[in-house]
Amino acid sequence: MIVILSPRSSESDLEEIIANLKDRGYGVHVSKGVEKTIVGVIGAHDNDKLLVAEQLSSLDYVERVVPILKPFKVVSHEFHPDKTIVKVDGVDIGGQKLTVMAGPCSVESEEQTLEVAKAVKEAGANILRGGAFKPSTSPYSFHGLGEDALKMLSAAREVTGMPIVTEVMDTRDVELVCRYADILQIGTRNMTNYSLLTEVGNAAKPVMLKRGMSSTIEEWLQAAEYIANQGNYNIILCERGIRTFETYTRNTFDVSAIPTVLGLSHLPIIADPSHGTGRAALVPPVAKAAVAAGADGLMIEVHPQPGKALKDGAQSLTPDGFTEMMNEISAVARAVGRYI
Amino acid sequence: MIVILSPRSSESDLEEIIANLKDRGYGVHVSKGVEKTIVGVIGAHDNDKLLVAEQLSSLDYVERVVPILKPFKVVSHEFHPDKTIVKVDGVDIGGQKLTVMAGPCSVESEEQTLEVAKAVKEAGANILRGGAFKPSTSPYSFHGLGEDALKMLSAAREVTGMPIVTEVMDTRDVELVCRYADILQIGTRNMTNYSLLTEVGNAAKPVMLKRGMSSTIEEWLQAAEYIANQGNYNIILCERGIRTFETYTRNTFDVSAIPTVLGLSHLPIIADPSHGTGRAALVPPVAKAAVAAGADGLMIEVHPQPGKALKDGAQSLTPDGFTEMMNEISAVARAVGRYI
Amino acid sequence: MIVILSPRSSESDLEEIIANLKDRGYGVHVSKGVEKTIVGVIGAHDNDKLLVAEQLSSLDYVERVVPILKPFKVVSHEFHPDKTIVKVDGVDIGGQKLTVMAGPCSVESEEQTLEVAKAVKEAGANILRGGAFKPSTSPYSFHGLGEDALKMLSAAREVTGMPIVTEVMDTRDVELVCRYADILQIGTRNMTNYSLLTEVGNAAKPVMLKRGMSSTIEEWLQAAEYIANQGNYNIILCERGIRTFETYTRNTFDVSAIPTVLGLSHLPIIADPSHGTGRAALVPPVAKAAVAAGADGLMIEVHPQPGKALKDGAQSLTPDGFTEMMNEISAVARAVGRYI
Amino acid sequence: MIVILSPRSSESDLEEIIANLKDRGYGVHVSKGVEKTIVGVIGAHDNDKLLVAEQLSSLDYVERVVPILKPFKVVSHEFHPDKTIVKVDGVDIGGQKLTVMAGPCSVESEEQTLEVAKAVKEAGANILRGGAFKPSTSPYSFHGLGEDALKMLSAAREVTGMPIVTEVMDTRDVELVCRYADILQIGTRNMTNYSLLTEVGNAAKPVMLKRGMSSTIEEWLQAAEYIANQGNYNIILCERGIRTFETYTRNTFDVSAIPTVLGLSHLPIIADPSHGTGRAALVPPVAKAAVAAGADGLMIEVHPQPGKALKDGAQSLTPDGFTEMMNEISAVARAVGRYI
Repeated sequence: MIVILSPRSSESDLEEIIANLKDRGYGVHVSKGVEKTIVGVIGAHDNDKLLVAEQLSSLDYVERVVPILKPFKVVSHEFHPDKTIVKVDGVDIGGQKLTVMAGPCSVESEEQTLEVAKAVKEAGANILRGGAFKPSTSPYSFHGLGEDALKMLSAAREVTGMPIVTEVMDTRDVELVCRYADILQIGTRNMTNYSLLTEVGNAAKPVMLKRGMSSTIEEWLQAAEYIANQGNYNIILCERGIRTFETYTRNTFDVSAIPTVLGLSHLPIIADPSHGTGRAALVPPVAKAAVAAGADGLMIEVHPQPGKALKDGAQSLTPDGFTEMMNEISAVARAVGRYI
Repeated sequence: MIVILSPRSSESDLEEIIANLKDRGYGVHVSKGVEKTIVGVIGAHDNDKLLVAEQLSSLDYVERVVPILKPFKVVSHEFHPDKTIVKVDGVDIGGQKLTVMAGPCSVESEEQTLEVAKAVKEAGANILRGGAFKPSTSPYSFHGLGEDALKMLSAAREVTGMPIVTEVMDTRDVELVCRYADILQIGTRNMTNYSLLTEVGNAAKPVMLKRGMSSTIEEWLQAAEYIANQGNYNIILCERGIRTFETYTRNTFDVSAIPTVLGLSHLPIIADPSHGTGRAALVPPVAKAAVAAGADGLMIEVHPQPGKALKDGAQSLTPDGFTEMMNEISAVARAVGRYI
Repeated sequence: MIVILSPRSSESDLEEIIANLKDRGYGVHVSKGVEKTIVGVIGAHDNDKLLVAEQLSSLDYVERVVPILKPFKVVSHEFHPDKTIVKVDGVDIGGQKLTVMAGPCSVESEEQTLEVAKAVKEAGANILRGGAFKPSTSPYSFHGLGEDALKMLSAAREVTGMPIVTEVMDTRDVELVCRYADILQIGTRNMTNYSLLTEVGNAAKPVMLKRGMSSTIEEWLQAAEYIANQGNYNIILCERGIRTFETYTRNTFDVSAIPTVLGLSHLPIIADPSHGTGRAALVPPVAKAAVAAGADGLMIEVHPQPGKALKDGAQSLTPDGFTEMMNEISAVARAVGRYI
Repeated sequence: MIVILSPRSSESDLEEIIANLKDRGYGVHVSKGVEKTIVGVIGAHDNDKLLVAEQLSSLDYVERVVPILKPFKVVSHEFHPDKTIVKVDGVDIGGQKLTVMAGPCSVESEEQTLEVAKAVKEAGANILRGGAFKPSTSPYSFHGLGEDALKMLSAAREVTGMPIVTEVMDTRDVELVCRYADILQIGTRNMTNYSLLTEVGNAAKPVMLKRGMSSTIEEWLQAAEYIANQGNYNIILCERGIRTFETYTRNTFDVSAIPTVLGLSHLPIIADPSHGTGRAALVPPVAKAAVAAGADGLMIEVHPQPGKALKDGAQSLTPDGFTEMMNEISAVARAVGRYI
């Protein structure tokens, strides 16, 4: 941590800050430039540093505090140099083979779920997605079928053998969802619901953590750190687009977040071009882009009749559209040393 | 709702969409322009419209669906033309007299809480704020003292007579927080935690709903609608800055949200310039701006020694700074027909 | 164009707006719903519509005006269904073969330029890029060598045979730059410099138009329309990242803009991952993503010693890094039916 | 400037960087922490530092370069501690009395201009604004009457005695506009048109520099530095809203930019709530907010019949609406120690 003093700071301000830091057990390194004085802060345990940084920046003779260390630890490459492979019932997430999670945005019925599940499996998907608890901007929209949907997903798993990923939104539902799901999904609206992150950090299931729609990459990795900090290291990150001024697409899919995360963290990362774009026609090109950029997999919304979907139809592919896209993805995957 | 058909749509597409809409009980009004065909959709109950809009926009012969009605109802001016006054233990929020909520970001000790409470009351504050459960980006930061902090706040209420506002972050804590607090605060990170919104909608206490850091004004009012939809109409909105590309301030305080909300909704709105700017020096000018723009009140962080605050020191005023600001605010309030 | 009247509008307001529109030669179509009255506006020439839309939206009994037609014409697919191929001295931009523009951010010397030009040609680039006039945020930064740089680029063209693309920033320099360059580049900071757009619209050279760092895709296509409107249809669009709240990357590369533009317009689009990310390590993965998403080419900064570059070294590849990336790109290109 | 080395850097990397910096005349200060090595760079002339910072950040063993000095100088408070008062023909901009610039977005006719000019003067405005050259997103919109409009403005000045502010968009027009205008306006779309900034920096007239719609406060002050660097210190800054995800308002008016600029720079700053909000109903509350936050003045669009304005009618006040607002502003101004 480096503290840059204001040009208006006095010699006694400098002494005060030095005394303050030494009291807390830090080493101090002063460097006086022509125009500014800079104090390097060395040593001691990291967690206290965040607090000290905040406190120092409130002093009126301090111009700025520059942190040196990254604000996440357990999920960083420095902590664990090897790539994490999350193993889910025979599926390895983070290896050479891409993981493809596909299915309807919302589970609507047993028939719909099974129809889609069979179709996406046939086309090469290896995990079934489907919403049982659905966050919606409006209180009057469809909110999912809850436990009934979880049962329909289980039934589809029995038939197809595909593990299930589904969202949990409430700390009180974690136990219930764990009884049915193979992977717990934390949605974009709950990335900063720290009670929920802590709760799934204590669960015995892998967690897929979507990026908050206005979260920086650092904040996203800190959210993962919340989960890891409870002892659950089976975390899969999912880039799903961020909020910008552009209105043509529902979100702006941040493709550079993929190589950035792979450079900063050992966790696998998958891409959700369905929410990332909000438009079915853009899903295949953005899916190919994500794979070319190094994504470990994809999450794709598929619905037999998007025009009748109870949620997010505009961004859903038909089973045929999905199959076509999978063929294209397969070629791109091989071009970057991966396969489906 | 208006449906704009793609130039590539055929006559049979048009027939299909008309049949589809009539089936669902809607009136239909077709208007053929030189280049585009437009279908007006009339009548039937609103909640279904959101779903229909989404489904139609997924059809490949539909270019765009334009909603006509606003996506919120109970919180809108049309529903309730008179301004809502939220009454909390003798304090009216939304009337001529401004409400000033002040106190420490986090409750740290009984002494600190009482010291600040007395000082802010003396300077004219009428509600005591203080964090017991604190959301933090890092799992290693301070997370609040929990129920102990609630007890300290209660003690300060007994001494000063000021009602208490404090954040609740977990559906499981709503009952506990209700036992101590006079107003339940939903923080920016939980504005899209719909389970929590529903839970506080069932509580018997007023709710202060902060704007999500990347939420539009419409989404914010829809979040309020979640609470109101459960029967709890005692809602206070709080503008606290949104996330933009600007890095000098912690957030960008959206002052125009104040008159916008007052124009669209009957709910009172207060301003939080402490989080809105993240810098103590900017709090007084932005507080004055908010009052001049019509805010019904302010929420201000005050700490006896900001340089030693366990959270958000950089944006906290000292009790003396707060007193000075209150005098300035008082003059601005009178200039716009309000008072402190 | 559709005009939605406010619930507060009267019958005489409706009559006024109808008379007003008929006066200007428009057909009118009124549709009264339960809660709102809607006026469809039909016919007449498009350019007036923009003005009428703006004027109507200022009336206090009008709630909203919804445009139906896209705000660009000549650059749209409807106007010209076939893909435009821009031909530059033997290089076709927009065809099966990808166009790769590479070279230093700034031209620094004849040796540097020639060294890089030979290296990038060897690796498969087909157009040489290099800055002669450089926009810089600070007045104290390097601003380019001007005409001397243009001469150095010409010299490199003579040796390598590669056409040249270089930026023009001032209406007064267009003639000068045309004497040397094969493609005129309009930089992100000048996308809304309409005088400059008009001037290059009158030039006899193709124009590469970078997206403004906070421009929507529609605004970008309207900027292209400015150029096309002067009769110059040889326009190449270049996605180079947009400004968002994310600070890890210099910009957020909007990969979905590539298929979006290809869907809306007949113009070719290339990708600039160097500015799009600002970090050399992210250039190859994002370049591969752009190609997978359908980009017609790439623009890449290459410098023999990035650590000594006079501008934008942090995002420049070395010639060796560029060669390595080109091999990877080649495989991805083949996977999507293109080649280098 | 502080250079943070990557954990992967070697001892010889450190030696290389030290030798490199010493060669360029810098003092060097090495500080080895437990996890990172930090190099402080001291002395030498500032302008080179920007370049060195960029070059160093491209080295793969450098993790980050942290600049210490602000990137602007002449416009900073450190350089010139007293507030600048820009004097324009009897009007002082930056003093106790607020400057109010008002008039139509576009000059449409001599009658319209004179009518508005008289009305706004009567209501207390002291500078007449009006567009002669208008930047428009669409090539088919109204672009202003050019020199004819400048003559109409001059005629209105002769009658009312009010100085004129009008936009210049092209380096080639600066001389022409200087013949008529008292203040040259640089619009938001040209804030990064550095050729134009340099040209008006050489003009003998004051310049009003609007903030770029996606520019940070630092970049805005650097744009002012371009003008000042040519010797023209008569610069007025104008906050006019920034681009965010919010769509209800045309832009998001950044009220905190006002006290921020007043803290960083000696230049006066005025507020444009007309463009800042894009909605006439929001102009008065946001204008009051700006004055309460410390703005030195306002720029307001006024049109006799906003419903027939050739540009930006939706955000224009009528003369009556303007007069009413001025009375309200007057009270707020007095509350913060200013007057109209």
